[in-house]
Order: sequence, then C-alpha cells, then structure tokens
Amino acid sequence: MNRRAFLKTTALTAGGGAAALAAPAYAQGKRTLTMVTAWGRGSAGVFDSAARTARVIEALTDGQLTIDIKAAGELVGAFEVFDAVSAGQADMYHAADYYFLNQHPAYAFFSTVPFGMTSPEMMNWYYHDGGQQLHDELGAIFGLKSFLSGSTGAQAGGWFRRPINSVDDLQGLRFRMPGLGGEVMGKLGASIQNIPGSEVYQALATGALEGTEWIGPWADEKAGFQEIAKYYYPAGFHEPGAALTLALNRDLYDSLTPQQQVTVELVSNEAHQWTLSLFQAKHGEALSRLQSSGIQVSEFPQPVWDAMAIASREVLEERSDGDLFDKVLASYTASMQSSAGWMGRSEGAYRLQRDRFFG
Amino acid sequence: MNRRAFLKTTALTAGGGAAALAAPAYAQGKRTLTMVTAWGRGSAGVFDSAARTARVIEALTDGQLTIDIKAAGELVGAFEVFDAVSAGQADMYHAADYYFLNQHPAYAFFSTVPFGMTSPEMMNWYYHDGGQQLHDELGAIFGLKSFLSGSTGAQAGGWFRRPINSVDDLQGLRFRMPGLGGEVMGKLGASIQNIPGSEVYQALATGALEGTEWIGPWADEKAGFQEIAKYYYPAGFHEPGAALTLALNRDLYDSLTPQQQVTVELVSNEAHQWTLSLFQAKHGEALSRLQSSGIQVSEFPQPVWDAMAIASREVLEERSDGDLFDKVLASYTASMQSSAGWMGRSEGAYRLQRDRFFG
Repeated sequence: MNRRAFLKTTALTAGGGAAALAAPAYAQGKRTLTMVTAWGRGSAGVFDSAARTARVIEALTDGQLTIDIKAAGELVGAFEVFDAVSAGQADMYHAADYYFLNQHPAYAFFSTVPFGMTSPEMMNWYYHDGGQQLHDELGAIFGLKSFLSGSTGAQAGGWFRRPINSVDDLQGLRFRMPGLGGEVMGKLGASIQNIPGSEVYQALATGALEGTEWIGPWADEKAGFQEIAKYYYPAGFHEPGAALTLALNRDLYDSLTPQQQVTVELVSNEAHQWTLSLFQAKHGEALSRLQSSGIQVSEFPQPVWDAMAIASREVLEERSDGDLFDKVLASYTASMQSSAGWMGRSEGAYRLQRDRFFG
Repeated sequence: MNRRAFLKTTALTAGGGAAALAAPAYAQGKRTLTMVTAWGRGSAGVFDSAARTARVIEALTDGQLTIDIKAAGELVGAFEVFDAVSAGQADMYHAADYYFLNQHPAYAFFSTVPFGMTSPEMMNWYYHDGGQQLHDELGAIFGLKSFLSGSTGAQAGGWFRRPINSVDDLQGLRFRMPGLGGEVMGKLGASIQNIPGSEVYQALATGALEGTEWIGPWADEKAGFQEIAKYYYPAGFHEPGAALTLALNRDLYDSLTPQQQVTVELVSNEAHQWTLSLFQAKHGEALSRLQSSGIQVSEFPQPVWDAMAIASREVLEERSDGDLFDKVLASYTASMQSSAGWMGRSEGAYRLQRDRFFG
C-alpha cells in the first residue's frame, strides 16, 4: 500500500473501529516529516525562519504533522538539499533556490537575480502575476512542490578587508557570492567561491576568503564578519530581494490531506512576510552598532555600480536558453516593470517627500 | 453554560459517546461565525481580502469554523462594525481601524497616519517591533482581539474635478478622506466628508462630493471614479501604507481552541501580504489604462506637499493625550526611523542605481 492510499484509508475509517475508540480520531495518521536546510543551526533569520515554519505547521495541524528539522550537514550538506528532496531522501528543504543553478538556471529568479526585483516586487510577481505558476513548472521537472517561504529583503553589498574604490580593486579578490551575482563578480575579475553560510567565517578568518556578502547588518553581525573585515557596503546589486524556498518532495506533497496542503502553502506565504519584516526590523539597529564600533560604512562608487550593471545584463543574456529560462525572465521582467512603475509613482514619490520634509 | 465552557466540554467528550459514533469526531463543535465588514459586496481588493480570509480559515480548520461574511449595511453599517463586535452582536469585523478614531484615536496607527509608515515599515513595526502588542493593549479596552489582515500599500492622492495647483484650490472643496488625513485636509481648508467607500460613487455623481481618495488605480477604476473626476494624483501624503484589520470579539476569541486561535492569527498575517501584493500587482496596469483613457495624472506641487506636511505634524501634536496615543506614536516613530534608515541605505540606494541604469 503506498503512502497516499494508506492515508485515504485512515481518513475514511477514522472513528469507525476499535482502534478509533482507543485513541482520539485526530491521533490517526500522525506523520513526522524531515526538513533539510541550507543553514547552520541557529543561523540568524534563516534557520530561525525554517524552525518557525516547522513549529507553525505543527500548531496548525494540531500535531498531525511533526517536522524534524536538520541543519546543513546534519543529514546532507547545504547545497545537497535539493537533490535529497527531489530523490525522496528527505521530505522537504528550506534554502535559497539560487543555490541550485546547476539543476536549472531559472531557479535564480525564485531567489534573486542581479539588478532584479526588490522583495515587494517579488511578492507581486509570485502571488499575483504568474511567478508561482512558473515555480510549479520548474518543480514538475524535479518532482518538487515549491513555495516562497521567507525573504531577507535587499542584501548588503558585503564585507571587504580593503575599500573598493574602483573595479580594479575587485581583480583577483577571493570573494563569496552565490547565484548569478557571483557570476557578475567573476566577470569583473573577482575569484568567486560559493560556500555555505555556515563555513564563511572560518574561510574569512583563515584568509581563504578576502571578503564576503551574507545577508545584512543583523545576520552579518551575528556571524561575526566585523571581527575580520572592516569595510561594509549596505547596498548591493546582487540580491535586491532574496527569497527563501520551502520545497516538498512532490509525492510526499500529494500524499498530504487537502487541509495539510493548504496549511503548508499558507504557512509558507506567511513566512515570506514574517522573515522579511524580521530582517528589516533588526538591520537598522545593527547597522548603527557596526558604525559605532568603527566599521567603515560606504557605498560603491558610481563606476563600480555601472560595471556591475553592465555585467549583470551580460550574465542574464548568456543564460538565455530559448526555453524555460527565457520564459521566466520575460514574465519576471514584465511584472517588475509594471509594479515598479506604480510603486515609484506612489510610494516612491511619497518617500521622497517624507525624506525631504522630515529627514 | 457560557460558550467557552460548552466548547471545553465538547472537546473533552468528543469521541466518547453515542453521538460521537454516529458522526465523525471532526464534526463535533462546528461553529459558524459572523464577519461584518466595512466594504461593499465585491469591492475590489478589500471585500476580496475579507472573503478570502474567511475561505482560508474554513479550509485550514477543515470546516470546523465557517465564516458568514456580511458586506457593509447587510447586518450593520460600515462604520458600525467596531461597536457591533465589541458588544458581541457580531463575532469579528474586517475594516480599516482608522474608521474608529472616535472609539480611540490611537487606532489611526493600526491603519495609517499622514506622513507615516509605508507598508513594509508597518510589517516591521507590527510583527517585530512592538506594534502588535500595542494593538492588543488597545483591544483590551474594547473587548477585541485584533490582527492586521491586509494592506493596500501607498494610496493614491485622489481624484479631483479640477487640478490642484495650489493650497487655495483646496478651499471649501467637498472631499472624502477618512482618518487623520481627513483632519489634515480640513486644516488646509477642505470640507471633509467621511463616508463609506460603497457610497462614494453616488456622492461624486450627485456633486455632494467634488473629489475623493479611495485606494489606488485598480480599485478606483473598478469603483468608476474616472467617469466623473478627470484629475488623478498617484502619490498622497495621507495613507502611505494603509493596513486592514480583522478584529474578533475577545470572548469569542478566547472560546476558540488553541489551533483555531493560531489559525486566525496566521491567516491574518498572510492576508496582509496577499492583499498588499494584490494591489501592487494590479495598480500598474490600471494606471496605464487610466492614462490612455485621457485621465490627467500628475503630482501635487511642492508647496501643496509642504502644507500637507506641516498640517500633518500639527494634527498628530493636537491628538497628544499624555497616554496611550502618545505611547503608540513613540513606538511607531522609533520603529519607522530605524527601519527606514536601513531600507533607505540598502533597498533605496539600490533602487536609485537600478532606475538610473535600467530606467
């Protein structure tokens, strides 16, 4: 009997037999699911988000589903979670989908792309403008049912041991940056290492890395990068609204009850907002602390931004496949232009007035 | 036997007696709750949000809770929903809390205030920086348990029959604007009418109103205001991130099971993001349609913005009560400054670069 048939039988017979009298009907069919993650245990914001998602699913299903959450390396490595869930070795993963460009480059769009959408723009696209359907289309290739389930907001440009005064300062720089952003930095001359967040501090401390981006002031401070690198750039080109994903093995997802399926979807949606607002609420104070402690906080010079923009366009063009990558890019770009246009004329214009008058 | 004691008895005895054998255990304790709303039936975005919230609660509780949703006027009027739920005449309301300044002026902050937070800033404050606790503190006065449950994003400045070239053009203008924003417009000389959204079109058509704000291009177009007023201002000072609220009668809320309580909370949180992104996704195209159809789309002149800013500060100062209004204002302002500071240096700086390079 496969898992789905078993559950159907359980649901239909609950309350009818001797076993049902011995235990409450709701105790039937309790399941423990394994969530593998790309995060170090306790990693600020991202592991927190995965752990809260697990707890909320448990609470909403009244314990019908229990989630056993694994940090990176506890069951599989940070970047192995995709294949583990696709193959059914684990039930679900919590990660950033741009870690899986080798599986399909279009996964970049469901995390973040250079000079792409901010987090509010991502919401608009994903929930109302075709994004989620395209995520489903990708998932169908790999036996996954994926949901956005968190966002870091706009990520900081990163930490450097020396200031970045020109593109020349990027030449040969051993830097950590995942996704298409890393490819852009590679084009500009950096030596890009894509290593899991849980290993970055050690790599910086030993000099294997000369700089890194991670998330933003609060999470970066918790990771301790300010102990090693003293130049910090709050604005970056590479992850303007980085989303996290909860992806379930498709057979596992199909075996859930309709109530459990809608629970996983709603909890994921809610986690997108909860995580985004967590980071945004925490980063401001952390940035102040970093500045007070002597970290040099600056913005990249204009020529560096220009070079990043040109290389970002090239990287997207090089990935063109006449297929799903292009289809996702077209949907993504059209949605971004439409919603950014409105938001610029309303919220953007308002922000300028508020900043002008109230500072 | 009061409702809470009845439910506890039901939960404890479910599955134990003859009735439980006759019907599945999950059929025990099914309840239908009444949701009154401030919205006309079918009103774009806002009634949609309330209706979706009701359906999602039903799905997540597997039908244990059914929500009977009432449009404005079907059980009580749009602005009477607060008192109806506080008194237990209805179980919950879906509305914008700035309709209830007469009950307590601090309710303004849980919808929107002039020159206040954008929607992302609202999320940061509400979920992570003390906002929700203050909403609870207000609710305790009135026997309510409230949750943010939707947002319109930054609202448009509104519709006018004649262009606004100076503050003088506001003198005596019969205009619809609720909340503290309406008080600001009153200070600038307008004659403010605070009427429910469902009655605005008729008031405009008869000339009782000479102009109105409602939400933004998509919802405004559905309401048909472009048929009457030809001058539209996408940016406004008055509602930079207007939130909606789902508020439950406190005794009713306390009578729910823990699973039902967490369901209502999670569904409300998720609705905040879903509704916000719905509006943001729809407004862009609607604005293009309005422009194509000959509507004059402009921004208020700088001196008008300045007058709005000065009057907004005065209105907030005049509401000072040495008590809860001031406490909420202090929390709100501190959170806004912290999160706006970070977001300006990261997402804001990024947006300037993206706009500069990619347009």
